[in-house]
Amino acid sequence: MNDRILALFEESPDAYVSGAEISRRLGVSRTAIWKHIEELRSSGYTFEASPRKGYRLLSKPAKWQLTELLAGLKTKVLGRKVHLFDEVDSTQTIAHKLVASGAEEGTLVLAEMQTAGRGRMGRAWHSPAGKGIWMSLVLKPRIPVYFMPQLTLLCAVALCRAIGQTCAVDVGIKWPNDLLIGGKKISGILLESSGEDERLKYVIAGIGISANLLVEDYPEALRPIATSLAIASGSLISREKLVQTFLFEFEELYALYLEKGFAPIRLLWEAQSVTLHRPIRTMTPQGPIEGIAEGLDDSGALTVLTPAGERIKVFSGDIELR
Amino acid sequence: MNDRILALFEESPDAYVSGAEISRRLGVSRTAIWKHIEELRSSGYTFEASPRKGYRLLSKPAKWQLTELLAGLKTKVLGRKVHLFDEVDSTQTIAHKLVASGAEEGTLVLAEMQTAGRGRMGRAWHSPAGKGIWMSLVLKPRIPVYFMPQLTLLCAVALCRAIGQTCAVDVGIKWPNDLLIGGKKISGILLESSGEDERLKYVIAGIGISANLLVEDYPEALRPIATSLAIASGSLISREKLVQTFLFEFEELYALYLEKGFAPIRLLWEAQSVTLHRPIRTMTPQGPIEGIAEGLDDSGALTVLTPAGERIKVFSGDIELR
Repeated sequence: MNDRILALFEESPDAYVSGAEISRRLGVSRTAIWKHIEELRSSGYTFEASPRKGYRLLSKPAKWQLTELLAGLKTKVLGRKVHLFDEVDSTQTIAHKLVASGAEEGTLVLAEMQTAGRGRMGRAWHSPAGKGIWMSLVLKPRIPVYFMPQLTLLCAVALCRAIGQTCAVDVGIKWPNDLLIGGKKISGILLESSGEDERLKYVIAGIGISANLLVEDYPEALRPIATSLAIASGSLISREKLVQTFLFEFEELYALYLEKGFAPIRLLWEAQSVTLHRPIRTMTPQGPIEGIAEGLDDSGALTVLTPAGERIKVFSGDIELR
Repeated sequence: MNDRILALFEESPDAYVSGAEISRRLGVSRTAIWKHIEELRSSGYTFEASPRKGYRLLSKPAKWQLTELLAGLKTKVLGRKVHLFDEVDSTQTIAHKLVASGAEEGTLVLAEMQTAGRGRMGRAWHSPAGKGIWMSLVLKPRIPVYFMPQLTLLCAVALCRAIGQTCAVDVGIKWPNDLLIGGKKISGILLESSGEDERLKYVIAGIGISANLLVEDYPEALRPIATSLAIASGSLISREKLVQTFLFEFEELYALYLEKGFAPIRLLWEAQSVTLHRPIRTMTPQGPIEGIAEGLDDSGALTVLTPAGERIKVFSGDIELR
């Protein structure tokens, strides 16, 4: 039925098609039409809906241009092997399986759509088709597990820099690795690791970037807290360009990190942070903590100065900017 | 054929059976008999071989007494759910699968025999049937990935204390978690972890204890570097008793650690160490390091004082005592 509805819109590009007409020609109820339009929306089609004029097809879902992506790649290792999928449960799940069957460092998993995209702390991640960058990157750094949180911060810095170079938005990092534009979330980063004693065996960096989602692509509940690069900048962005830039930035920072350690990464993180020198609140296993975020320590933990003058290290969890 | 050979020995317990007799009665060559005896040995049977008198069956493979194990368990959580197998590739592999299908903290996997037991750094671990303690313990500590190496050290302390209470041997810890008796290895510990950003999702502690292996149970190549509790103490030990004691010690130290942090564990580790204040050598990604092992830092790294007076932290790898 969705195909037949799309065919109707193809007949008259850019024009409104009334609900009455669709109903008459396809023999379905107005409620059924609304349900099918919603399904098409979740597959990446954008419609304008007018109570009087009906529906108008604004855009079809974008498809990854893999040839273009690979042609413009300036990295040596990262993204040199790409696995592209139309639809997956989660690119993280795919990447874990690829590593189990021998995938090498730099292997990239891309999907147009995730049906069960995962965010931090078991939360869901909204990943509609063609609108975003839903990807997982395989890393095999020869560093101790101990340094894992530093990689999380490095990833946020690379993404923040890549976004800054690709579109005209003012993006900042909320500890540890949320990217915000005007206080709203633009991307999610989730690093899953596998370790053996003190050594990391591999890391899978899951990165979700809300690139070209429009306001109507978000469920109501997400609209107050999430935004996209398209909404913030006022124009659609090239997903290929952003991935190329991100991988290049990541590779440069990663080489710097493996050679010089965390110090230069920390400075870059602090420069992009929207967390530092601000009052924050967070829950820890020992109870709530409030105070001023002062900086990062060597392990990547956030140092918080409490009103009582105590300095507390926050290793884990979410913080709330106040 | 192995069954028929065993039947011959059962006919005359404690007596020698000559190769000639086995050969005549079963209609197989002397070489074939030798091969079958070797197979039986690797399944946990012990034979004495005399060039003139033939073979004598000394002992049959021990079987885990699960009822006895559970009855004497003094823990609240650890080992309260046990999965026992006759033969597995590796108890670690089984435990990973159990966690994926929801196994809880404290779940214990025991096997009489591992066909592909894993040691640190991808090494094989010799795990013949009935002779040792080959087990994996599921842990879900609410601690940052950052603290993972501390758990590795805690595990070594718990095992060292349990062995000390169970048999009369002088056992010490070589950094980070090898247990040695008279310079020879008695056990191996391998902690595999799964993390999400800065949080540990779960840890699987793989523990191999060479309990009742005799010298002839070891391949020639291992004899200069490995020993067992039975060899060192001169008598067979109760595997059930040792597992009960280990789980109890681990649970006590684990509770102490989660409440008070690493400081008390560090003191216990240092007290049991055979590494401290001795010259050591190790390879790091930056090259070889030689010096005196001074102590542990907060992360569990070994601090080494070099001849040039420099203090270097060793996070990862093997050390060589000199």
